[in-house]
Amino acid sequence: MSAQIIDGKAISATIRAEIKVEVEAMKAQYNKVPGLATVLVSDRKDSQTYVRMKKKACAEVGIASFGHELPTSISQAELLKVVQELNANPDVHGILVQLPLPDHLDEEEILGAVSLEKDVDGFHPLNIGRLSMKRREPLFVPCTPRGCIELLDRTGVQIEGKRAVVLGRSNIVGLPVAMLLLHRNATLTICHSRTKNLPEVVREADILITAVGRAEMVRGDWVKPGVVVIDVGTNAVDDPADNRGYHLVGDVAFNEVKEVASAITPVPGGVGPMTIAMLLRNTLDGAKRTSG
Amino acid sequence: MSAQIIDGKAISATIRAEIKVEVEAMKAQYNKVPGLATVLVSDRKDSQTYVRMKKKACAEVGIASFGHELPTSISQAELLKVVQELNANPDVHGILVQLPLPDHLDEEEILGAVSLEKDVDGFHPLNIGRLSMKRREPLFVPCTPRGCIELLDRTGVQIEGKRAVVLGRSNIVGLPVAMLLLHRNATLTICHSRTKNLPEVVREADILITAVGRAEMVRGDWVKPGVVVIDVGTNAVDDPADNRGYHLVGDVAFNEVKEVASAITPVPGGVGPMTIAMLLRNTLDGAKRTSG
Repeated sequence: MSAQIIDGKAISATIRAEIKVEVEAMKAQYNKVPGLATVLVSDRKDSQTYVRMKKKACAEVGIASFGHELPTSISQAELLKVVQELNANPDVHGILVQLPLPDHLDEEEILGAVSLEKDVDGFHPLNIGRLSMKRREPLFVPCTPRGCIELLDRTGVQIEGKRAVVLGRSNIVGLPVAMLLLHRNATLTICHSRTKNLPEVVREADILITAVGRAEMVRGDWVKPGVVVIDVGTNAVDDPADNRGYHLVGDVAFNEVKEVASAITPVPGGVGPMTIAMLLRNTLDGAKRTSG
Repeated sequence: MSAQIIDGKAISATIRAEIKVEVEAMKAQYNKVPGLATVLVSDRKDSQTYVRMKKKACAEVGIASFGHELPTSISQAELLKVVQELNANPDVHGILVQLPLPDHLDEEEILGAVSLEKDVDGFHPLNIGRLSMKRREPLFVPCTPRGCIELLDRTGVQIEGKRAVVLGRSNIVGLPVAMLLLHRNATLTICHSRTKNLPEVVREADILITAVGRAEMVRGDWVKPGVVVIDVGTNAVDDPADNRGYHLVGDVAFNEVKEVASAITPVPGGVGPMTIAMLLRNTLDGAKRTSG
């Protein structure tokens, strides 16, 4: 029997519709809308596309967006100044610095300069600390990890008491999603490039979250029947038949694993659309906090 | 064959001797010694004993200690003022607020008020965030978790690629020791009260760290032959034959598990002595950082 396909596009659309209602209510009550500032310092096509998608998504739900497209030659001091101005701007409730930054800039310092109250990406170490600890609420939960948990919740997957395996331990996905699963009372295992007998460990999972960026690494015989799979990987593979010359696949061999899993996210159309929805959600939450 | 007993008392003595040499060198070079402030707000016998042991350990290695024994009736504002004075005192390089505090005090606010540069307990959320994230160094690693890793290292146990299971997810032991094992490239599993089939999960461990406070919970048939066990639990069990009326045991049934494990810490005399040694180490590290 083939798995339920978790439709991230549809779930994300539902969430964006919910956000739109709340934004309208805020506007009616306070004559104010949430504002998101995007900071782009890159010639990279993918970064430009992401920022454009984020601004478009803001517009659709009524969130104001403030785009800052800066030359890649910008100095550390000049970029810090932009961040500080946005920190001080009361119409801005979220600041998103699109990564990666050019090599000559100190990413850690720039991200650390974003006001905690506007850190909608949730990447500040203080936020990650509060996220990791028990009984300490972070101001913002990072978007992609939050999106993974939303997908599980809105699919009706129980997390408590389940064995959750996270493949990957990055600061932006693997680690924070692992902490969220732990706080939801999963028995948590984190695997990575140094894990031995990886298929054996992955096979322990009732819930599997993959975020390693290795095209179709997880095969059908790596997973336990009935597993729920959230595939964060987005990998381009050459494809002369596609007019872009490539197509996207996840970290999981979808066609094989869907025959064993009980539910699985596709790539694209799974986690991807959730990240932007959660960014909007975080921006709205930030704005609600400032309005009291 | 019976397991190697990991002698925390002996390893801790070695570390304290190493620290003493460094403190003497600092005194000779800078005419300055590290200073540790202890803040005790409790009538609890155990808290008083811990603080006394910490001061004695400081004296033995040449670290200055500044004891603040405050009435349990102290207000939040008064206690905050004590912390702020210690933050400002240049002879103090580490501030230890003995926990638990009386119920009327806000522990989170007090701990958050300790200057990051003097947070030798390493409990500040920013420190835990930096500890959890890749490529972000915390200023201080919490003492007991750091002691667990030292015990493994000084026993010659390889961590990379091993399956490490941590039983317990407290902010002060379980979570930070899990993050340390992950950064050392173990495949990490965290178990807790909601874990199902606990013996089965524990049996996956090559390295087992227990920190749950349940007397002798882990039995001989829960562990894989050859496992290395670090038992952080310290539990009092009634014992009329003992002149205190109780004796201490760990979270692990020592006599059973030592017949299966390759190495194991005893309770007492395992992790306990390491916590104080690491507190001295952190205080010395803090003082070295300020002297440049």
